[in-house]
Amino acid sequence: MKTETISGTPVFEPALHHLHRQNWRSWLIGRPLQTADAPKQTIGKAIGLAVFASDALSSTAYATQEIMIILAAAGTGAMGYVFPISLAIVTLMVIVTISYEQTIHAYPGGGGAYIVARDNLGELPAQTAGAALLTDYILTVAVSISSGVAQITSAFPGLYAYRVGISVAMVLFIMVMNLRGVKESGKAFAIPTYFFVVTMAITVGLGFMRYMNGTLGVVLNPPEFSAGSAVAVITPFLLLHAFSSGTSALTGIEAISNGITAFREPRSKNAGITLIWMSSILATLFLGISFLSGVIHAVPSEEETVISQLARTVYGGTGILYLAVIAGTAVILIMAANTAFADFPRLGALHAGDGFLPRQLTFRGSRLVYSRGIIALAVLASLLIVLFQASVTRLIPLYAIGVFLSFSLSQTGMARRWWKSGHLKPGEEIVEPGSTITRDPHWKGKMIVNGVGAFCTFTVMIVFAITKFMDGAWIIIFLIPTLVTIFFTIHHHYKDLAGKLSLTNFHSTPRNTRQRVIVLVAGVHRGSLAALAYACSLSADVTAVHISIDDSEAQKVREKWSMYGEGTRLVILDSPYRLIIEPMMEYIGKLLQNRRANETLTIVVPQFVPAHWWENFLHNQTALMLRFSLLFKPGIVIVEVPYQV
Amino acid sequence: MKTETISGTPVFEPALHHLHRQNWRSWLIGRPLQTADAPKQTIGKAIGLAVFASDALSSTAYATQEIMIILAAAGTGAMGYVFPISLAIVTLMVIVTISYEQTIHAYPGGGGAYIVARDNLGELPAQTAGAALLTDYILTVAVSISSGVAQITSAFPGLYAYRVGISVAMVLFIMVMNLRGVKESGKAFAIPTYFFVVTMAITVGLGFMRYMNGTLGVVLNPPEFSAGSAVAVITPFLLLHAFSSGTSALTGIEAISNGITAFREPRSKNAGITLIWMSSILATLFLGISFLSGVIHAVPSEEETVISQLARTVYGGTGILYLAVIAGTAVILIMAANTAFADFPRLGALHAGDGFLPRQLTFRGSRLVYSRGIIALAVLASLLIVLFQASVTRLIPLYAIGVFLSFSLSQTGMARRWWKSGHLKPGEEIVEPGSTITRDPHWKGKMIVNGVGAFCTFTVMIVFAITKFMDGAWIIIFLIPTLVTIFFTIHHHYKDLAGKLSLTNFHSTPRNTRQRVIVLVAGVHRGSLAALAYACSLSADVTAVHISIDDSEAQKVREKWSMYGEGTRLVILDSPYRLIIEPMMEYIGKLLQNRRANETLTIVVPQFVPAHWWENFLHNQTALMLRFSLLFKPGIVIVEVPYQV
Repeated sequence: MKTETISGTPVFEPALHHLHRQNWRSWLIGRPLQTADAPKQTIGKAIGLAVFASDALSSTAYATQEIMIILAAAGTGAMGYVFPISLAIVTLMVIVTISYEQTIHAYPGGGGAYIVARDNLGELPAQTAGAALLTDYILTVAVSISSGVAQITSAFPGLYAYRVGISVAMVLFIMVMNLRGVKESGKAFAIPTYFFVVTMAITVGLGFMRYMNGTLGVVLNPPEFSAGSAVAVITPFLLLHAFSSGTSALTGIEAISNGITAFREPRSKNAGITLIWMSSILATLFLGISFLSGVIHAVPSEEETVISQLARTVYGGTGILYLAVIAGTAVILIMAANTAFADFPRLGALHAGDGFLPRQLTFRGSRLVYSRGIIALAVLASLLIVLFQASVTRLIPLYAIGVFLSFSLSQTGMARRWWKSGHLKPGEEIVEPGSTITRDPHWKGKMIVNGVGAFCTFTVMIVFAITKFMDGAWIIIFLIPTLVTIFFTIHHHYKDLAGKLSLTNFHSTPRNTRQRVIVLVAGVHRGSLAALAYACSLSADVTAVHISIDDSEAQKVREKWSMYGEGTRLVILDSPYRLIIEPMMEYIGKLLQNRRANETLTIVVPQFVPAHWWENFLHNQTALMLRFSLLFKPGIVIVEVPYQV
Repeated sequence: MKTETISGTPVFEPALHHLHRQNWRSWLIGRPLQTADAPKQTIGKAIGLAVFASDALSSTAYATQEIMIILAAAGTGAMGYVFPISLAIVTLMVIVTISYEQTIHAYPGGGGAYIVARDNLGELPAQTAGAALLTDYILTVAVSISSGVAQITSAFPGLYAYRVGISVAMVLFIMVMNLRGVKESGKAFAIPTYFFVVTMAITVGLGFMRYMNGTLGVVLNPPEFSAGSAVAVITPFLLLHAFSSGTSALTGIEAISNGITAFREPRSKNAGITLIWMSSILATLFLGISFLSGVIHAVPSEEETVISQLARTVYGGTGILYLAVIAGTAVILIMAANTAFADFPRLGALHAGDGFLPRQLTFRGSRLVYSRGIIALAVLASLLIVLFQASVTRLIPLYAIGVFLSFSLSQTGMARRWWKSGHLKPGEEIVEPGSTITRDPHWKGKMIVNGVGAFCTFTVMIVFAITKFMDGAWIIIFLIPTLVTIFFTIHHHYKDLAGKLSLTNFHSTPRNTRQRVIVLVAGVHRGSLAALAYACSLSADVTAVHISIDDSEAQKVREKWSMYGEGTRLVILDSPYRLIIEPMMEYIGKLLQNRRANETLTIVVPQFVPAHWWENFLHNQTALMLRFSLLFKPGIVIVEVPYQV
């Protein structure tokens, strides 16, 4: 321990030996990291792709199937629309990718929808975008884990009954990985991500080759086709509905723009390249799966996923290669939840830093991650999984609407930013919290790109809200404004508190405040005499108070006090209704009425500290109750004097 | 408010105006009652029968049926044994009644199994009897309510799906009635008890008349007879098993002996007469129902109770008289739970008074009832109902074993008491906590009566434990020793604490202890300056401590403290691992090492008091965490100085 003095103030550096102890916590999440270690915890492109792309890539595992489930209402004839709809979705994907590539370069410090909307559109759009994204991150975890477990139960139907328990266990596993810190979780997740990309690429490639030489065939023993009893006709509404379901393929594209600061320098360049890689892989796999699923006449089903049907058709059975695809898909889906675990806590900390969420979310834990955000996400996602019984089809209508809302707010913000940039003189700049705007000669073209992105994603959101409203989207449409209201309520609290605590116009109170001390005496014993000794050390004006429920008990206290009370005054409060707090409050009320200026009333309560926590249940928690009752009365301080038994 | 002085001590009588306010609490459970009102809250024989007999009488609603369910395994031919088994049970009932009549006169202050075993057999048997009884009271509530709801669903099968919810709602209703106090709940329950006795007597009487003149017939459309696929033969084990199930008819007989103090003077006489009334009614109804059920070929079933089958056969349909019987039976069963609500809290208070359960159970609430015991019973019984899905047949194997254990301990204790009485000289007496023993000339006869009672009930308990072990009795056989262990652990804690708090060999500490005060400063604002002002009023030795996670923040605190700190010393604790509690603990550890004798360390923590409780979630609860961490270090007191925002 060294003690230096900087500008007259002693600085004390604790040795913190206890941190080097091996305990269950350090075993679970690793040894604590110093704040100074922070910059080292960044990642390159290859690991960045693994950390941030698993969400986007994994949606290929269910997007095609969700399109087919909607089209199934119009019978097998409608399945011809799967590939055209997938092409439309990929077009949208290209527009969104180009838009976000621009955002990444404009916001090297992290350009999530929240920051872009805050700097360019104002607080309300920013909070809306944030609420939408936070909601969607929770759904990402719930949907990905549920879908991952569905892959596993496709291969091992016996596990179907335990899907909820397995899903929750997986959420907790990912939580622990993330509490260990971003770099280590990046390493842990790199292998599965690349395993998935490779196995899926082989499956799609081989499937395409077999299709070309005519040996692919169709699914053998497909699961039962469960079309509605009254087969619907193909309407524009049905096609838009199917398109909406497929847009879940786009979720996760925004992840990199939120997480730029996790990349190694040059951040923007690395992040931008990673984004383009990711979108290319995503588009290729998604189109390939949609095309082949149509060719093999795959059937959408809760019992066997489309991926499982495709894999066993391509490999001609359920051998080792089939199992590799299922395992890869299951693992990437489960790891996809990791993307949300990387972003949710960062976004939560941004909100909290601006005073719209509890400040505790800005606190980084012993491993330099936002531990509370990570734990909050795990708890909320587990709750959703239990509520929706780990069913992807029941969760999917809640999903994606938030993403598209944040997409369109973010792109609108970017368009506005380019407009501002175009109206600057060369050399002039605007410094905003998230970035610095300088004049960009290509502002018009960039504004059009982001404007088109904003228009398209907004349109998709409206389509989604209308076609999926009854399926569950209404929950999100109700939830997001509620969250925004809560955020502003929290913000109001912090602003209000800061004003009230401010030292502007502060006049210091005169010193030497007079202390009036009350000691609460339930019985005369070593504990209450320890409290009396403490009270006497505070002030010469000490009064002991006993609340009498039983006359004979009061008489005993009176006698003992005359022996041990060191001459302090004893007041007995009669309690005919056997209450403790109420007579005390009334007595204190009287004292406060007669209080002199600058007199502080201190109430000393003896408190046993038993050897075991459960022993507290064997005692009245009078001090605790008194504390609650007196909390709102100014000028009173309660002191519990612990007596270690 | 008047302030008198008795033997030099001021006695302060609070006006307690607030107690006369009409609030939701007084609306729900009535206005508070003074301790001095207590003796008025007693009851006469007629209301006493209603309060204490509903448990015993209501068992006629299921005892016959539970005998039949066991015999059903051997086919309809075995039903001929229902009446002989019922006769055996009534014989046992007579023995137990005579035994308890003697107990009531020997223990006018309340002679439950707990007191009798404690005074005559010692602590271990007493705690065992108490544990058995407490368990059984909880089961009484669960079984009675479930059976009551089963009567209702016999008449209205549509409600079957809601039986668990209805059952829990009823438990809560009875809880509220009991929180209002014994007299008022007695009134509320008198009408249904007598309504049941009268309707059931009419049913049995009319049934017997119709049997005599040959017009009774058999049940029309009986529920399906669900005998096991492999029909068992009639073995002695099966008959004993059926007998065990039927002994549930005896539960509740002990209720009066526990509750003697609730009776008006002369207590013992009133209570004894009530006991004999109760047993006579019980035996008559039980035998009548068992006899008629055999005659009409009633079928044991979960869908329609035997009572329902009997009533519609006797009245020839489901008209108004049938509904009256069903309503009366349902209501008495639900009210039977009230008996447990009258006794469980009293017994809990006895245990707690002897230091075997938390002391809080001895506290009488605003209506002079043991509120906490009442609430605990309601919570535990509701839990059982939910766990066993309100099924009487699944609950019954847990039931009655505790009652018979307490019966045999109580009777053994009584036999021992008569033996002691017989060995006293005339005029000599032994004063025990529960009663005073004098020489009784008839001690031999009385000892034989209680001895026979003890032997019979002990035998029945063993039979019950063996025949019902696999059905669920093992839970109770495991639970009772566990409870006894817990009781003794609690007792050990209280004894240990009393020893450590005792003032024997106490030497008072020297006065004028030196105060060393630390103020925890997270930031410099009105809240922390209020804490500083308080700290300065305690001592001249004040040090402010700031824990630095962020250097720029620490610099700000340093500058502001030089302006507002009133010259007190500021120490900055560097926290490279972003922890708050650990560096503080280490600093305090250092101070404690250098502490002088009689120096107390007081840590002052500023604490916001927000206007709304939920706002607390928006702040770090540093004071709270510090309190937990420092609880076990002697010589440190934490003071939270509230700052009302």
